[in-house]
Amino acid sequence: MHFTSEQHLADGVRERAFTLGDIPGLLWTPASASASAPVPLILLGHPPLGLGKMYPRLVARALQAASDGFAAATIELPGSGDRPRLPALDRARAELRGAMRAGEPVGDEIVDALVLPLVDQAVPEWQSALDALLALPELRGPVGFSGGVISIGVRLAVVEPRISAAVLFAGSLVPRAVFDEARRVSIPLHVLLQWDDEGNERQASLDLFDAFGSREKSLHANMGGHTGVPQSAGDEAARFFTRHLN
Amino acid sequence: MHFTSEQHLADGVRERAFTLGDIPGLLWTPASASASAPVPLILLGHPPLGLGKMYPRLVARALQAASDGFAAATIELPGSGDRPRLPALDRARAELRGAMRAGEPVGDEIVDALVLPLVDQAVPEWQSALDALLALPELRGPVGFSGGVISIGVRLAVVEPRISAAVLFAGSLVPRAVFDEARRVSIPLHVLLQWDDEGNERQASLDLFDAFGSREKSLHANMGGHTGVPQSAGDEAARFFTRHLN
Repeated sequence: MHFTSEQHLADGVRERAFTLGDIPGLLWTPASASASAPVPLILLGHPPLGLGKMYPRLVARALQAASDGFAAATIELPGSGDRPRLPALDRARAELRGAMRAGEPVGDEIVDALVLPLVDQAVPEWQSALDALLALPELRGPVGFSGGVISIGVRLAVVEPRISAAVLFAGSLVPRAVFDEARRVSIPLHVLLQWDDEGNERQASLDLFDAFGSREKSLHANMGGHTGVPQSAGDEAARFFTRHLN
Repeated sequence: MHFTSEQHLADGVRERAFTLGDIPGLLWTPASASASAPVPLILLGHPPLGLGKMYPRLVARALQAASDGFAAATIELPGSGDRPRLPALDRARAELRGAMRAGEPVGDEIVDALVLPLVDQAVPEWQSALDALLALPELRGPVGFSGGVISIGVRLAVVEPRISAAVLFAGSLVPRAVFDEARRVSIPLHVLLQWDDEGNERQASLDLFDAFGSREKSLHANMGGHTGVPQSAGDEAARFFTRHLN
């Protein structure tokens, strides 16, 4: 892990860009974080649109985390931003767009092709990032995972024991295989659902919530489309991490 | 409205029992409430089990309201507690129990007979209580409605303009007619759903949430049965009132 730049944001929050091999990433730490007072970490998931495009929303979430006493970090997803394209993923996206334009149902094979290779490649990368981040003296567990591609969050919740709690955003196409993985999730979950999400089939999201094996899980549905999560719902998600990462 | 007794609870909260005609009720006011600093009021709905039986849960909710700076009040439902029985309601309950014991589906006519007469009689009583309560110098609007029989909450939200926000508990049998009323609700709603509620059909609750006409509505689903609402969900509902009644 190599830090490539650093800047200071509001309230003494420190933002550092880094690379992990050839994967770019960002780390935000609150002013209070130090080797003698390390802070818990929240991994910020995001859709595969590139860190550059996602930056405004990511930094807002990082500042919220910092104000609650947590560090936040994220890495670029495979095939996104400045990383090499993944031709298979691009083909699956083209098929998805074609099906949606034609008003056809999106078949399981398109969803699988779109999501499963991304999950398979991304999850070990996020685990490597976790190795590198938790080696920094100013960071410690427990670790939370927040948002982004829900199938990545589900896989991480199953395979990565350092993640203690997750805020998941019900807003992606979910392969059938992920429903089976969901049954194996046991960490506390706080699931956000936008009731009128144009990019999300509501019943599938409710079914996925039902499938999660966690004894402690809650669903928070709000009005509006994909990016319309109200401030109060963001505040509730922040309080969930405060309850579970301290 | 006649006050019949008074006691002081924790943190200077004043509990007064009253009668409104022959309807018993309870009023809780925070220590801060006075004629020169009147406080908003939350009406505490409850299931038709009698105020005596419901008292422990009601007083807990009233103390939460008081700690947030709100007064809270409730009245006995028709046919409950020490009020005269309603033979038609008792017959409908017996039919409901019979159907449930026999493992038969609960027909619309049983649900209608169980709920609609209760709503028709209770709602004007709660409105009269509101008249009397808001005449007290230490109370003021806006008024919130919280919990209890959801069909009463829906009707009140439609017909009573002094109610500005409601926390509804998706946990009752809901007549078809109430779905039509739900479309006419326009105040902000915070709806609690117990995902595994033994006394509640989950899909019907989701459909009712979908039917509400309110632009601002949110659904908060938690694990567990009818009385298992977690503390964090109660805290969220309290914050909803703090956002909307101040």
